[in-house]
Amino acid sequence: MAYVNPSGEFNRDQRYIPTRITEDGRDGYPVEPGRYRLIVSRACPWANRAIIVRRLLGLEDVLSMGIAGPTHDERSWTFDLDPGGRDPVLGIERLQEAYFARFPDYDKGITVPAIVDVPTGQVVTNDFAQITIDLSLEWARHHRTGAPQLYPPDLREHIDKINRYVFADVNNGVYRAGFAGTQEAYEKAYARLFARLDKLSDLLAGQRYLVGDTITEADVRLFTTLARFDAAYHGHFKCNRSKLTEMPVLWAYARDLFQTPGFGDTIDFIDIKKHYYVVHKDINPTRIVPAGPDLTNWLTEHGREKLGGRPFGDGTPPPPPKPGERVPAGHGPDAAGLTPASTTD
Amino acid sequence: MAYVNPSGEFNRDQRYIPTRITEDGRDGYPVEPGRYRLIVSRACPWANRAIIVRRLLGLEDVLSMGIAGPTHDERSWTFDLDPGGRDPVLGIERLQEAYFARFPDYDKGITVPAIVDVPTGQVVTNDFAQITIDLSLEWARHHRTGAPQLYPPDLREHIDKINRYVFADVNNGVYRAGFAGTQEAYEKAYARLFARLDKLSDLLAGQRYLVGDTITEADVRLFTTLARFDAAYHGHFKCNRSKLTEMPVLWAYARDLFQTPGFGDTIDFIDIKKHYYVVHKDINPTRIVPAGPDLTNWLTEHGREKLGGRPFGDGTPPPPPKPGERVPAGHGPDAAGLTPASTTD
Repeated sequence: MAYVNPSGEFNRDQRYIPTRITEDGRDGYPVEPGRYRLIVSRACPWANRAIIVRRLLGLEDVLSMGIAGPTHDERSWTFDLDPGGRDPVLGIERLQEAYFARFPDYDKGITVPAIVDVPTGQVVTNDFAQITIDLSLEWARHHRTGAPQLYPPDLREHIDKINRYVFADVNNGVYRAGFAGTQEAYEKAYARLFARLDKLSDLLAGQRYLVGDTITEADVRLFTTLARFDAAYHGHFKCNRSKLTEMPVLWAYARDLFQTPGFGDTIDFIDIKKHYYVVHKDINPTRIVPAGPDLTNWLTEHGREKLGGRPFGDGTPPPPPKPGERVPAGHGPDAAGLTPASTTD
Repeated sequence: MAYVNPSGEFNRDQRYIPTRITEDGRDGYPVEPGRYRLIVSRACPWANRAIIVRRLLGLEDVLSMGIAGPTHDERSWTFDLDPGGRDPVLGIERLQEAYFARFPDYDKGITVPAIVDVPTGQVVTNDFAQITIDLSLEWARHHRTGAPQLYPPDLREHIDKINRYVFADVNNGVYRAGFAGTQEAYEKAYARLFARLDKLSDLLAGQRYLVGDTITEADVRLFTTLARFDAAYHGHFKCNRSKLTEMPVLWAYARDLFQTPGFGDTIDFIDIKKHYYVVHKDINPTRIVPAGPDLTNWLTEHGREKLGGRPFGDGTPPPPPKPGERVPAGHGPDAAGLTPASTTD
């Protein structure tokens, strides 16, 4: 498996394209309404962050979004959900084309999220951790009225610290467990993951969100992993000490966010399951996609309001997603697996 | 994968060796204390039935037991748990040798449970469904005082009926899900499995055991699958609508049996997990064995006594297992996965 070092540990290649889209345009790409296109796949937790932040901040009309299908081959994400298999704005079949348009010899992973410069068709950046921060800070002039402050100056240090260990132990931790090349590397990742989840659970027992009373970038990042936990990581990545549904505080925290506009309405459980179980043939050679788990429970009462908090701070919730960007029917918590077969006994 | 037909369905080869050990010896193998050896693996649900029934009936002193290790290669179960890797009574390294001693050209699976004739070293039978029935009926004269009636004449028809659909939908149903060669075959098996579990759950909500107030052969057969459900079938075989722990009636029923002498004291969760995750490399090519789930909950209160019932009928519970036949420490519900790693944040 690629990226597994000699001791069997999975190492994520973190050399992303460092170009940034900024208000001052210092990297050659100034913030400009209508100029760029955010490419995502709903399956991918890293892209999911950008989908959520774009929604929360109300950037839909200034930054369009192209959605790649849940599965990809070894070379690229593809636009197989679009008519004719081409992104309607960029006109390409494979995201790879945008990478090659800028770097003809690009030899690292073709990843989402990526932002593409529409006039040239060239990828600008795929640096997922920077993308959401820049949507908050550099695109601030284009935020909707009532957009929340996801990365406010006085909380940055705190958010950064949480993000660091949530990334190492949880966001990337599930991959380290799932892609481990040895039993030892797997067990190390598993132990770190659940130790961290236990600590986060202790923290969140007493406060509604990770840095206090209001949703921030830190919650977005933890949420996209929790949303995939039972549907993919529990079985596929062997993160199976317990399901998310068996960790009461985290499960209530995750449902609270899920039921908040801008979070659950971006989650496509069908795409998530397909992606993991079909793409990673080294782990699941049969490529059969599990019918479970039952996901309707994401809509059950979470009771977290009693902790108080102001989800959007001085802001307001975003309006519902635009029709063209809604998760298809049957792909959300209504993706409840299969109807039990009739039996005769 | 072997045994998968063109439509992708797993078909268990059910042509077992039909020879029987009977009181009248009509197949050439009369019941005789000390003459035979039951070969099992603690990992295997079919062998587990025989381990339980032998314990419940108190046949330990008349029918010895050899325990093969949890993993095997494509050819045979092996005695790798024994000193020198040989069964101490039969003196063989591989169970295959006992099969070949009787049938030099034996070309079907080398399966457990198997009963071997010690003087000749030849396998007598591996017909798992018949073995436990014969232990109840043919070996009756050698049962311990207080042995329960697991297959009483007036309930046979009822037990047989339950056994048929529990086999088709549950015992073998989990394999049909896990070994399915197509998405469609998998989904069919999954739907049948959970539809059946729901029906069994309805039945067991109102009565303590499958045929009423007392443990029978039917409970033994359902139990060995339920004991493996969360540890193996949920993730490895994608039987993941819900964990056993999420099906309250079945979970209480399974714990009730687990905590009954003769059931839980035969369960080796470490061997079970190793077996499935290491042997089926077509499903789990990394052969990494999950550290979860947490299994200590098997010992929690089940509350089923309130349904009444007489677990052993007019009989009594069996005494504890003999020292040489105890499940190793750390392999039972104390096999609680890993200690969470220390974290610094």
